[in-house]
Amino acid sequence: MTPTPPRERLPVAVLGATGAVGQTFIRLLADHPWFRLAELAASERSAGKTYAQAARWIGDAMPEQVRGITVLPCDPAQVKSPLVFSALDSSVAGEVELAFARAGRLVLSNAKNFRMDDDVPLVIPEVNADHLGLLEVQRAKRGWSGGIVTNANCASIMAVMALAPLHEAFGISRLFVATMQAVSGAGYPGVPSLDILGNVIPFIKDEEPKIETEIRKMLGRRSDTRIDLADIRISAHANRVAVENGHTVCMSVDFGTHVGADAALEVLREWRGEASARDLPSSPARALVVTDDADRPQPRRDVDAGRGMTVTVGRVRADPLFDVKLVAMGHNTIRGAAGASVLNAELLVSTGQAGPA
Amino acid sequence: MTPTPPRERLPVAVLGATGAVGQTFIRLLADHPWFRLAELAASERSAGKTYAQAARWIGDAMPEQVRGITVLPCDPAQVKSPLVFSALDSSVAGEVELAFARAGRLVLSNAKNFRMDDDVPLVIPEVNADHLGLLEVQRAKRGWSGGIVTNANCASIMAVMALAPLHEAFGISRLFVATMQAVSGAGYPGVPSLDILGNVIPFIKDEEPKIETEIRKMLGRRSDTRIDLADIRISAHANRVAVENGHTVCMSVDFGTHVGADAALEVLREWRGEASARDLPSSPARALVVTDDADRPQPRRDVDAGRGMTVTVGRVRADPLFDVKLVAMGHNTIRGAAGASVLNAELLVSTGQAGPA
Amino acid sequence: MTPTPPRERLPVAVLGATGAVGQTFIRLLADHPWFRLAELAASERSAGKTYAQAARWIGDAMPEQVRGITVLPCDPAQVKSPLVFSALDSSVAGEVELAFARAGRLVLSNAKNFRMDDDVPLVIPEVNADHLGLLEVQRAKRGWSGGIVTNANCASIMAVMALAPLHEAFGISRLFVATMQAVSGAGYPGVPSLDILGNVIPFIKDEEPKIETEIRKMLGRRSDTRIDLADIRISAHANRVAVENGHTVCMSVDFGTHVGADAALEVLREWRGEASARDLPSSPARALVVTDDADRPQPRRDVDAGRGMTVTVGRVRADPLFDVKLVAMGHNTIRGAAGASVLNAELLVSTGQAGPA
Amino acid sequence: MTPTPPRERLPVAVLGATGAVGQTFIRLLADHPWFRLAELAASERSAGKTYAQAARWIGDAMPEQVRGITVLPCDPAQVKSPLVFSALDSSVAGEVELAFARAGRLVLSNAKNFRMDDDVPLVIPEVNADHLGLLEVQRAKRGWSGGIVTNANCASIMAVMALAPLHEAFGISRLFVATMQAVSGAGYPGVPSLDILGNVIPFIKDEEPKIETEIRKMLGRRSDTRIDLADIRISAHANRVAVENGHTVCMSVDFGTHVGADAALEVLREWRGEASARDLPSSPARALVVTDDADRPQPRRDVDAGRGMTVTVGRVRADPLFDVKLVAMGHNTIRGAAGASVLNAELLVSTGQAGPA
Repeated sequence: MTPTPPRERLPVAVLGATGAVGQTFIRLLADHPWFRLAELAASERSAGKTYAQAARWIGDAMPEQVRGITVLPCDPAQVKSPLVFSALDSSVAGEVELAFARAGRLVLSNAKNFRMDDDVPLVIPEVNADHLGLLEVQRAKRGWSGGIVTNANCASIMAVMALAPLHEAFGISRLFVATMQAVSGAGYPGVPSLDILGNVIPFIKDEEPKIETEIRKMLGRRSDTRIDLADIRISAHANRVAVENGHTVCMSVDFGTHVGADAALEVLREWRGEASARDLPSSPARALVVTDDADRPQPRRDVDAGRGMTVTVGRVRADPLFDVKLVAMGHNTIRGAAGASVLNAELLVSTGQAGPA
Repeated sequence: MTPTPPRERLPVAVLGATGAVGQTFIRLLADHPWFRLAELAASERSAGKTYAQAARWIGDAMPEQVRGITVLPCDPAQVKSPLVFSALDSSVAGEVELAFARAGRLVLSNAKNFRMDDDVPLVIPEVNADHLGLLEVQRAKRGWSGGIVTNANCASIMAVMALAPLHEAFGISRLFVATMQAVSGAGYPGVPSLDILGNVIPFIKDEEPKIETEIRKMLGRRSDTRIDLADIRISAHANRVAVENGHTVCMSVDFGTHVGADAALEVLREWRGEASARDLPSSPARALVVTDDADRPQPRRDVDAGRGMTVTVGRVRADPLFDVKLVAMGHNTIRGAAGASVLNAELLVSTGQAGPA
Repeated sequence: MTPTPPRERLPVAVLGATGAVGQTFIRLLADHPWFRLAELAASERSAGKTYAQAARWIGDAMPEQVRGITVLPCDPAQVKSPLVFSALDSSVAGEVELAFARAGRLVLSNAKNFRMDDDVPLVIPEVNADHLGLLEVQRAKRGWSGGIVTNANCASIMAVMALAPLHEAFGISRLFVATMQAVSGAGYPGVPSLDILGNVIPFIKDEEPKIETEIRKMLGRRSDTRIDLADIRISAHANRVAVENGHTVCMSVDFGTHVGADAALEVLREWRGEASARDLPSSPARALVVTDDADRPQPRRDVDAGRGMTVTVGRVRADPLFDVKLVAMGHNTIRGAAGASVLNAELLVSTGQAGPA
Repeated sequence: MTPTPPRERLPVAVLGATGAVGQTFIRLLADHPWFRLAELAASERSAGKTYAQAARWIGDAMPEQVRGITVLPCDPAQVKSPLVFSALDSSVAGEVELAFARAGRLVLSNAKNFRMDDDVPLVIPEVNADHLGLLEVQRAKRGWSGGIVTNANCASIMAVMALAPLHEAFGISRLFVATMQAVSGAGYPGVPSLDILGNVIPFIKDEEPKIETEIRKMLGRRSDTRIDLADIRISAHANRVAVENGHTVCMSVDFGTHVGADAALEVLREWRGEASARDLPSSPARALVVTDDADRPQPRRDVDAGRGMTVTVGRVRADPLFDVKLVAMGHNTIRGAAGASVLNAELLVSTGQAGPA
């Protein structure tokens, strides 16, 4: 079943367009078949300038079509697009995203502010597309016609992509997670080079609690009006390493009842995820790829799989303490941030939950 | 109680002197107050050359006094020193170390070959000095007057330094370990730069089983003729990162009974280790230092603490799954390899278990 | 004028197929529109194995179609393709390439052995396509129907791409070159990580003399039977840096007569290179791109321009000592090695100098 | 001739004490035999806090004795020490340093503001100690009893250390310089990791003009009231590389008349620099060391030579274009910044130009 594209490209806006995640949004949306990058918004400091003047572009080359766009303030009175991608910092995302939702816009947010709210879906299309049903709850409860849909913290997304098949098949009860996260996860300028060259920083502010809660929500079950968090006890260790892109996540998984590595491997290999999430413009051929190489996945070698939307899993093996150990790795600014929001938007459009009336 | 130094410096030899660990031995022994670096041995390829000709020196500058030493083959008929440090690769260490022990020499080995043998002590002086008593068992059983004393795998040593106080105080029952290990742990030339620049390799050959067993032996209790492995279930994840020196180890520790982070912290802060291990030439002022900084220990900033002999512990906090989470970091080629062997030798000499009759 | 493709894909072979450059050849040829990757050859050690068994693949994923190919020895009696790409090490390239040329094959060589021979063309299609005329001289002189065409050292190629327009327009008389070269230029395993992490190595064996001579040949003028080296005095400083891909080359250029930075810039911007080199399958849209950003080109950000075939030039400015300073950067294993050979082959085929009779 | 130490330790202050260079000053002065680190000053934002509260310490561990010092504003009414080390940013250094000099203090400045002023000495003790005579000119001209003594840009210092012996012996007429500079040269937070991991940035703001002028002043000759710049035409290329500490400088040197590499080598080996600069507390055993290793100096391996005060020179060889090529490398925050100022201060004290009346 191929999803139906919209008849014409929907105008979309990016809030926080000058930052690192904002730039990734622009790269992903610059030639998007369903969306037309109509508006860019950022802080007052940038508003009124052209995007080329306002942004210090981090990557290879700024897409031509955005250079001349005049940056708007993050104000729904001036930003008119019905679909809005938010790359805002959490210090301002709360207020701004609420304003846009109240103004009837659908906000695809990458910020942490509303992720754990009872009526806000925290979505990975292949994993829990049905959580989007919360949007109706949200509209009813908050009395707005817009909405807020969030994607999780980048490290949590990598973990959940690998855990979803296992949780579906066997039920996870306990989980140990140790991450090695890329510097791009901290934005730009982000991590000073003096802090990370030849170094490991065994601490990322607020990251461990996010991992320990967001995974449970994404793997949770939707009841009528809320998500029942999955009953998993999680311990996370978050580390920053000298890698540009790609978060690596080591996990030990306990299922309560014995599950062998072979059974886990088979489930991981066969998993395709939600049918509705396939064949969207940003969907990779395979959302989850299992590697047989003993020393993979590796960020530098596997991060671009599926144009950054594939999570690679490897080293699935027996765990002397829990049941199974494994390693998952994926692109933190694409699958783990901007690409996640774009995929969420595509799912909303293709399922008629967003787009032209 | 200050240990008594030997009346004159004991002649010692280094086997495998040209490799990376061998070079660290040379650096540590070049001006040692108790030992005189009398002989250097290496493979047949190097034997007969001067050390300056035979070795490609990795570090800053080769100590002057070894440049002209003629490299010997690893043969106890030619290497005469009573105390022998082995930096041999495990592919040859087995046979050579046996030959030296049979010839009445005391071998301080950094190789894995005999570490888990019932009658071979696996020692960190501050932690389990009493395991050296196995030497007598070994001599009785094997009928030699020499002996083999081993130190553990580098990552296991960092872990044990932090775990020993906790195990002593509360008894550890379950343990998660995720390591981020420096490239120097793989020797020279070791890890190709194309494999590790901007990358993480989530695999180190044979490392995880070593960690899962060696920790149990070092924390084990000595009975008359053997070591009873500590009854700890361990799961290890070993990773290679782009760090020159310093293995970082994230751990989640379960004590069976509830232990809070504060109690663990207090125990870690107060621990001094075995009295007999203090004030040896290679002993650091503190074998274990607890840092209060939220983002430490870090390899680049803490690796040289105590001239590479101090292990730094930080981020001691409650674990949602087990009892306590923490991070330990130490210098893998000093505290985790050559320095460990040298400290073992110093302990043997100061306790009269080695040295002049 | 679009070049005429061959009617059917020509069978080609790669010699030295298991090494780093060999792997880049395979990546570039795996889906080539004009060439069919028919044969892979390597050392005796690999011969007889499948390619998947014989090669330790360095990059992301080995192309499926080569996994099962049986590796042949580097022997023209067994390797039948008329067009042969040589990624051989210079220690063996001399003999093997001669054998293939004598057997009537056209060898596109990446090795240094014959580069400076009087009758061997050293070619960058956009710069000196006419040097290929030496092939006839070579055949006449050596009495073979095959031939050897070489491409230059990777750093020399980056320099020449930026210098060719300037030399054409103004004539270069003196040149300073300081390079910062990526580790991939040393092959695999190549540079040990302990040598390059957080480091610069101000030395690359044999590199400076290559740069000082090869540039002069490529910019030289073809007379009937030989190339007259360009009359440029060159001083090169070659350095290795902790970069995966992309050689950066700083140059100061003297023209004998005064040339300003603006004039140089204009020439660089307008240059398109030889018409016959455009629109080949591996030709980038622009072989040379001039960047206006004050801090570019940068290897990580610009190395993939033109799928690795574009050289980016920046910081064109007045030089207080010579006339103009500038920086050039390009992909050393693509434009600087395998891609260079492939482009040479495409030019030979499109101009009727190779291919089906 | 051993310099006479002051009878008691002189109280000194550090301006800009919280930044990266300020921290290096603190590390060098914490246990200085001649100076007592009496006062720390920084911006208004930090003033009033303890140093431990005000500074984010970059290195291993903050010296205990400074933790509790209350940070003062950069105001000579509040900072009383007669000797003041300035690690101020150039945006504020101008005004503040003038105020201190006017208030009768001797300012040892690391900032660029006054370096090229006619009456301000730009000093490396081993090279041009006699330039300090300008202090009298400065006092006469500016009517103050204090003074400003500067040290050069870090890259210029490395170059001059290697060039001084050659200029003395043969007279340099033309110079090509290409630098590869460590990230610590940009302070903290300084270079974002996303900009430099696996990358080279071929641009450092304002650096090339500094190198092209400061070298000429340091190698200039003092006439009665001014320094006659050395008559050298210089072209500099400045690059940032992924190195923590240590600037590497490649140079080609022309002497007008022919000088061979052997003659240059001999001069470099024999050079000891100004007698008055020897045996100061911060003087290294050798200010300049010539290495014979073909691939040295290297920042990671040689940067700590002479506790960061030795510059290592290597690869002295014939230049096909000028006379001699060579590579110099030294510690940019020690010999190239804070250590340079401290050594200047020691020279002033030992020669009676500063200190107790």
